[in-house]
Formats: sequence, C-alpha cells, structure tokens
Amino acid sequence: MSEIIIHAESAKKASRILACLDSDKKNSALLLIATRLLENKESIFEANKKDLQKAEEDNLPDPVKKRLKFDETKLDDVVGGIKSLIGLEDPVNKVLLHTELADGLELYRVTCSIGVLGIIFESRPDALVQIASLALKSGNGVILKGGSEASNTNTILASVIYDAGIEAGLPEGWLYLIKARSEVTEMLSLNQYIDLIIPRGSNEFVQYIMKNTTIAVLGHADGVCSTYIDDEADEDLAIKVAVDAKTQYVSVCNATEKFLVNRNLGFDFIDRLINTLKENHVEIFGDDEICARYGCEKAPEWHHEYLDYKVTVKLVDNMEEAVDHINTYGSGHTESIITKNLEKAEKFMASVDSGNVMHNCSTRFSDGFRYGFGAEVGVSTSKLHARGPVGLEGLVSYKYKVYGHGDIVKDFAEKKRQFTHKKFDI
Amino acid sequence: MSEIIIHAESAKKASRILACLDSDKKNSALLLIATRLLENKESIFEANKKDLQKAEEDNLPDPVKKRLKFDETKLDDVVGGIKSLIGLEDPVNKVLLHTELADGLELYRVTCSIGVLGIIFESRPDALVQIASLALKSGNGVILKGGSEASNTNTILASVIYDAGIEAGLPEGWLYLIKARSEVTEMLSLNQYIDLIIPRGSNEFVQYIMKNTTIAVLGHADGVCSTYIDDEADEDLAIKVAVDAKTQYVSVCNATEKFLVNRNLGFDFIDRLINTLKENHVEIFGDDEICARYGCEKAPEWHHEYLDYKVTVKLVDNMEEAVDHINTYGSGHTESIITKNLEKAEKFMASVDSGNVMHNCSTRFSDGFRYGFGAEVGVSTSKLHARGPVGLEGLVSYKYKVYGHGDIVKDFAEKKRQFTHKKFDI
Repeated sequence: MSEIIIHAESAKKASRILACLDSDKKNSALLLIATRLLENKESIFEANKKDLQKAEEDNLPDPVKKRLKFDETKLDDVVGGIKSLIGLEDPVNKVLLHTELADGLELYRVTCSIGVLGIIFESRPDALVQIASLALKSGNGVILKGGSEASNTNTILASVIYDAGIEAGLPEGWLYLIKARSEVTEMLSLNQYIDLIIPRGSNEFVQYIMKNTTIAVLGHADGVCSTYIDDEADEDLAIKVAVDAKTQYVSVCNATEKFLVNRNLGFDFIDRLINTLKENHVEIFGDDEICARYGCEKAPEWHHEYLDYKVTVKLVDNMEEAVDHINTYGSGHTESIITKNLEKAEKFMASVDSGNVMHNCSTRFSDGFRYGFGAEVGVSTSKLHARGPVGLEGLVSYKYKVYGHGDIVKDFAEKKRQFTHKKFDI
Repeated sequence: MSEIIIHAESAKKASRILACLDSDKKNSALLLIATRLLENKESIFEANKKDLQKAEEDNLPDPVKKRLKFDETKLDDVVGGIKSLIGLEDPVNKVLLHTELADGLELYRVTCSIGVLGIIFESRPDALVQIASLALKSGNGVILKGGSEASNTNTILASVIYDAGIEAGLPEGWLYLIKARSEVTEMLSLNQYIDLIIPRGSNEFVQYIMKNTTIAVLGHADGVCSTYIDDEADEDLAIKVAVDAKTQYVSVCNATEKFLVNRNLGFDFIDRLINTLKENHVEIFGDDEICARYGCEKAPEWHHEYLDYKVTVKLVDNMEEAVDHINTYGSGHTESIITKNLEKAEKFMASVDSGNVMHNCSTRFSDGFRYGFGAEVGVSTSKLHARGPVGLEGLVSYKYKVYGHGDIVKDFAEKKRQFTHKKFDI
C-alpha cells in the first residue's frame, strides 16, 4: 500500500471519532493549536525563510513571494482566526427538522460531519492553518496538499498543528500533509476514504481536479463576473459601482471582468464609463462597436478572466440579452445589475444562474467574511450541496435519527396504526 | 450534433424559464397533466398491453411484469400523487437566511431550481409520471430514461405529459424521454447541460453510472442495512422488530440484511431469534459460530444485499464492534440499534455513518412517505447535498441575493463604513 492510502484510511478512522467529539473538546484542541503555534513561532519563521530564499533563487514573481511570507502579522492573523472560530457555533448536531411520525415514534434531521476532506491549496501557508481549523471545528478528518514553494513552512505548520491536536486528545491520523505531487493523483481515486475534495488554485488546476475524480468536488474554477448596467440605471451610482467592482482588487475571483451595457443609455453615458475606467488604469477590450468607437482591442473570448486592470465591455439591447449572455458565457459565480427598476432587478436576479446575484452594489461583496459567515473555506460555483461562499455549514452533512419503542412497519401496513406526521418548530 | 445533445441543450434553455415560474403556473400545469393523463387513459392502457405482451413473449419474471403493469389503479395512484404534489409548498424561492450586511445592504439566501435533472429509472412506468411532476414542481428541466421493457408505455406517458405541459405554457424542451440506451452513455458526459443525475435501478447499474460520470449523482447503489441487538435490549421488542425489519417486505433497500447480535445476550435469546426468523421463512447465513451451532451456510460476504427471505447473522462482542463492522461493510443506508440503554443508543446513532439511524424500531421506516416528505425521488447514500430519503427539497439549490444602494467595497476597506452583520429570524 502506498503512503497516501495508509494515511487516507487512518484519516477515515479518525473521522469517525472526530464526528462524535463534543464542542468543548474541539474548542480546547483549537486553543492548544493556537498556543503551540505561538510557542513555535521562531522555528516556523525559520522554515519560512528557507522557502522565501528558495523563491528568491527561483526568481518567483513578487505576488507569489508576498503570499508565501509567513511572519508575525500572518501568525497573529491565523491565531486570531482560530480564536474567532472557537467562538462560532458548533456546526455539528444541530437539529434541522423534528417530526412526530406516530405516537412514540420521532424523527430528527441532525447535522453531522462529512468524513474526510481532501484540500489542495495555493501557496499561502496561512491557508493551511485556516483549513485545518475549519476541518477540526466541523469534526472532519483532513488531508492537505499545499504549494511546493511553501513546503518548509507547510511541513512545520502541519506538524505543530497535528501534534497539538494529538496532545489535546484528537485521534491519530486526524490530519495529514501530502508531500509529493504524485500523491494528489492517487488521492483523486480514493472514493472509499475521501468524501469531499476542495481545490483552491488556478483555473486549469481546479478544472483538472474536477475532470479527474468521481469524488464530490467543491469549489470554483474561475470567476468571470459581470455587471449589467441597465438603461434605467442611476448613472452616477453605476459609475461608482463599476469602478469598485473592477478596480478595488483586480486579482480576485469576485472582481467584475465584464460590463454588459444597455445601448439605450446612449454614448454620453458610455463615453463617461469608458473614460472613468481608463482614468482608473483599466484597459478596455470590446465588442465590435466598442472597438470601432474607442479604438481598443477585441475581447479575446466571451468567457475570459483577466484578474488584472483589464475588462470586457459589450453592448446589449436589453436585460434579457444580458441574462442570456451571462448564462451562456459566465462561470456562475457573481453578477450584478445596476437599475432603478426593482421589478427588472428581481427578474435579473431570478434568471441569472449564478451563486451570487447583486442589485446596485459591487460584485466584490460576494465573500464569506463580508457575508458574515466568519470563516470561509472557499467559494462554490457548484449547485449541489453548497453554493457561493462556503463556511462551516458547507463542511457538514446531516443524518436522520428515528427514536421508537419497538415500532414495526407491519402495524402501519395493516392500518392498525396511523402516521401523524406532526412537525415541530425548530 | 447527436439528438441527445440537442435535447439536453434545449432542456437547459427551458430550465432557465422553469426556474422563474411562479407556483400557480407550475400547479396549473400539474393539474392539466393529471387531466390529460385521465383523458388519454385508453391509449395509455393500449400501449401498456403491448409492453405486457412483449414481456410475456420474452418470458420476463413475474415481479417485472407486475411492476410493468399500468392499469386503472396505477393511473389513479399517479393522478392522486400529482394532486397531492400540487398541495405541497413550492420548494423554490424560500428564504433560508437574511442578514443586514450594513446599513442599506441586505443579504438573502434563497432556494432556487438546480437546472436539468437526468433521471434513469427502472421498469415501473408510474415512476415516469412521479419524476416528471417532481421535476416540474421544483422548476427543473428533466431528461428521462426508462426501462426498455416499458418503452411503449413510457413513450405515450412522456408525450401526454410533455404536450400538456406545453399547452399549460411550459417552455419547449422542458422534458425529454431518451429512447436509445446509447444516449445514456452520451448523457453522462454532458456536464454543461445536465446538473444532477439520479439513477434508480440495480446495484451494478447505479455503480456503473456513479463511476462513469463527473456530473453529480444522487442515489444509492444498494441497501445493506443492519440491525444491532444489544445485550441491554428488551428481548421481546428485539424479536418483534427483527421480524418486521427482515420480512415485512424483503425486496426493498431498507429491509434488514444483517443482524449483529451481542453475544452476551446468550444462546437462550439467540436460539429464539434464529427460530423465529426460520418460522418466518427466513434462511440464515452465519459467521463461523452461528454456522457451527445452527448448521447453516456461511454468509457469502459481509457486504451482501439479499433482497430475499435470507439474512446474515453475526455475533459481536460489544456495540463498538457492531459500529466498526457497519462502518466497514455497510452501505450507509439505514441501521438500527435495539437497546434499553439510551446512552448507548445515542453513541451508536452518532458513530454509525449512515443516512438513517434508528433506535428500537424497524429499518423499514426509512422512507420519504413514512418520514412525511409527501413525495420521494429516491434515497441518497451520498453525504453531499441530500442524504436519506430525498423529497422536493433535494431538487433545489440556493443562491445568495444582495440588495444595495450603490454600495462599494472600497468604503469598507477604507473603514469609512462598517459591517453590521445583523441576522434576522426567518
């Protein structure tokens, strides 16, 4: 048996125990993890220096080096994150439904842990801490794979976290850090041990994962988010929101990559929009009409994520055309409509098949922290299980519990007893 | 383009419209479908006679012929089913969460349709009517494939239902019946058009589907359900429940296929259990000890679904062994514990990783109708999205809607505004 199979089996066994831990036990483990991280900070920073030095030698781009850095500030952030997680309600064992099936026969739908999560994340080592603590709080075992650039930092973080967990009484095998990339491929076929895979990374990488496993995958490949500016828009509001949606932070999945502009707004407005975007250092890629008028390049394709100071601008005849365009070429992530017409807004928000739909505000709001979920494991563009920003409740399933007193189906089949199906308020 | 792709694309387009239909429109379409089914009953029965005749010629087994039959009683049943579905609450557009993110910026989590369902079902033509109406009520487009034995009946049922839907104003392409088996294989790769596949049929068939698609699959391959009889069980109650769990209806997925018996109960009880089962025509397959004492055959394997008057009996030392055995060899469907010890019952129900866990009652209760869900599309052993018996609410997803007044993220990033995250009761 290869190493990953042994560890996956061990994580599965551990997950049975994690699933039954009470909140106090999980919270005291989280607290000890925070303590041990602080105590071991010098060794962690030391390991991080090695990764940074290697990144320097390999001439990695500055943004990668920035994400890679794990210093006092990052440590304070993750420790703060763990402490706020301790304060959140336990997502496990929440009663979702309670029905009296018949006299003395009671049904409950109760949340429970999923089992083992396989999480593959990008170069930020702080993601490891965040993911491990979310998995623990939700009672799941976890198999992690981080970016190879961060391998020294990840190794020590995983080791400190795992050991602190064991010290706090968590079961052996509750967390495992995959070292070799080859193990990822093997992990994708371990349906019997891994219940859910959450890939975080580039478009191509996430798509590769999604296409190469029959294990459920939660996440998003890309965010081709659109803002539709309706002919009944408040023009000042539209300009303000457009600038924020495109430029507030360009390299993130909820930044607007495309403006669909109702042509009835006229070129007075369209000129103003284009010029304001240009003043904000945004390069315009247009449809034929926009290109002809503003001398810009054609958009490379309708489904295009720039993650840069670049945007596609396309004119549409009406809201319906915008909706069709989004549903055909979008990624189902986040779309916004700017209009004073509330009825149109409702129609747009119902018709657009995306996890997040906005009215008169920036697409940049679609985010677990801004939504008040406290912690976020990622954003899902899947429509099954969890959609949109996914917090702790996306990391649990549920089971039905039935409590009886020797009840048999025969009595109901023979009409000796009747179902009452009395629902109780939760 | 092959036929299935054209129809799947068309179902996707239709699904955008279905998703936005109000409850009245969906309910009046359901009503017209019921009416048209009754009006066309002679042609439907005629088509069914052809299928039955073919089944006779092909020497199909009696249970298949019984399931195949679509007569006045079956028609009344499905029409009754449609009418009760009309009475159920619309699963779409239900607010699940409402948070004020900041002054004038409101977040809602609202249920919405999934898109297009691909449903492959066994030989019962009444399943076609049930599935089509569930899909419609939940605002989803649907692609159906029924058993070839029922092709004449399915063809006319699908045609009457589709036409009635169109007459009631549903969009073109809202339902499509696959004719050729080859189209099923093609359907499994249509990720861009089909959002969820629900296979109903034999173990091998469902496993084949699950292994051959990256589209989400909802369902269960088999039901290897266990009843654990604890040493602290009420013995009379245990015998009564055991007989019901095994014999009330043997060919269904929630029938008990295995008794795990705590050996501390002693052979006085075990003799009584075995003898009572035998009196109820149940053949025993044992572990070594049971085989030696009762002269029965060894169980063919620990994960075995008989769907017959046959059961595996295995002795265990304690509840923990029973739980380990179930989690290793079970199918995650339904398990029951018989014990007077409530603490042990809770431990068992928390530790067993199955969709339905029961205390002191028959595994046969795990069923959408008995749970009071009104309608059931199947039972899911998946832990993602929907688990256990799946009713209308398993056929919907949700989206986040954010209503603003020109709100931009920059104001929050620059601390000019603060998030309030005020949650409202639903």
